[in-house]
Amino acid sequence: MDLLKEYIQKLITISDTNLNTFCGYFNAVTIQRKELLLRQGELCNFEGFITKGCFRLFTIDDKGNEHTLYFGIKNWWIADIHSFLNQVPATFSIQALEDSEVLLINRENKKKAFNEIPEIEKLFRIILQNAHVALEQRMIKNISTTADQRYLKFLEKYPQIAQRLTNIQIASYLGVSPEFLSKIKRKIAKS
Amino acid sequence: MDLLKEYIQKLITISDTNLNTFCGYFNAVTIQRKELLLRQGELCNFEGFITKGCFRLFTIDDKGNEHTLYFGIKNWWIADIHSFLNQVPATFSIQALEDSEVLLINRENKKKAFNEIPEIEKLFRIILQNAHVALEQRMIKNISTTADQRYLKFLEKYPQIAQRLTNIQIASYLGVSPEFLSKIKRKIAKS
Repeated sequence: MDLLKEYIQKLITISDTNLNTFCGYFNAVTIQRKELLLRQGELCNFEGFITKGCFRLFTIDDKGNEHTLYFGIKNWWIADIHSFLNQVPATFSIQALEDSEVLLINRENKKKAFNEIPEIEKLFRIILQNAHVALEQRMIKNISTTADQRYLKFLEKYPQIAQRLTNIQIASYLGVSPEFLSKIKRKIAKS
Repeated sequence: MDLLKEYIQKLITISDTNLNTFCGYFNAVTIQRKELLLRQGELCNFEGFITKGCFRLFTIDDKGNEHTLYFGIKNWWIADIHSFLNQVPATFSIQALEDSEVLLINRENKKKAFNEIPEIEKLFRIILQNAHVALEQRMIKNISTTADQRYLKFLEKYPQIAQRLTNIQIASYLGVSPEFLSKIKRKIAKS
């Protein structure tokens, strides 16, 4: 819980009382490697703040291929927010890639927090702002660069994540086949 | 200004006084077809709420190719938010594709609004939330589907925008060359 408190205090000014009330709305969950925190098609009734380990948020298409929207490690949030906000079946599954720990807040408690603690609006406005800027940058890179460039960018931006992932997982994030990623890696190794 | 007021009242509950104060922070700007509202490399000192016409937010890469992050029409926001928030040179240019009108709020006034009007935090939290969900969905489609599917999805989702754009503009949004888009269109027309 200290990790979450520290994280929040970096983003906003908040009294200890309000900070404790807000953090009291979270439940700590331990989850083992390869287990699912959410299954595609279910309702996502939580937003998670990761305190240990590594997760991935992915979807499986009609042909059985996996596609990864993002990976999350300590101090990142993880949720199918479309499902969480609009109460529609989740597009994504969330899986622990290592033995992991996450703090979960459910819809009811998040609503309570918004109603009772004014600073929480600012907190989530800033969190969403940062996440949105990062996703806009990734989106334009995805449109405008080759898979080779995207792979190198991923290694450069998330070195602490990349080394913990398999080829298949990274390929599913870059939007290429594992075979194509192997080809890219060989090309880079040669040059 | 009525459009902005209506838009805000759909998202949050706010007193008339506060609504008027907030809207008073915007300046109406008229801009002609093909003119730039922002040039890549400059500082983006505004967020814009579009009240008429159509804009595109795009970047030009080292090779001179244009890539479009998104198009915006009435009731959409447009800005290089990374540049606006972090005071770094804009990645994107913003161009009017038709004779257009936009309400602009600058950094100083936005900061004032956050300080003076508590509901504005909620307003932007909701706006960002909606924008982020939409961008997450686009991102996963971009990774997981073919250009053909993305083109059909774009037509289905934004019919009111698609018919106002050139082939080159749509191709720069889909992340394909104009030649490849023509090929896709011929293939779809045949089937």
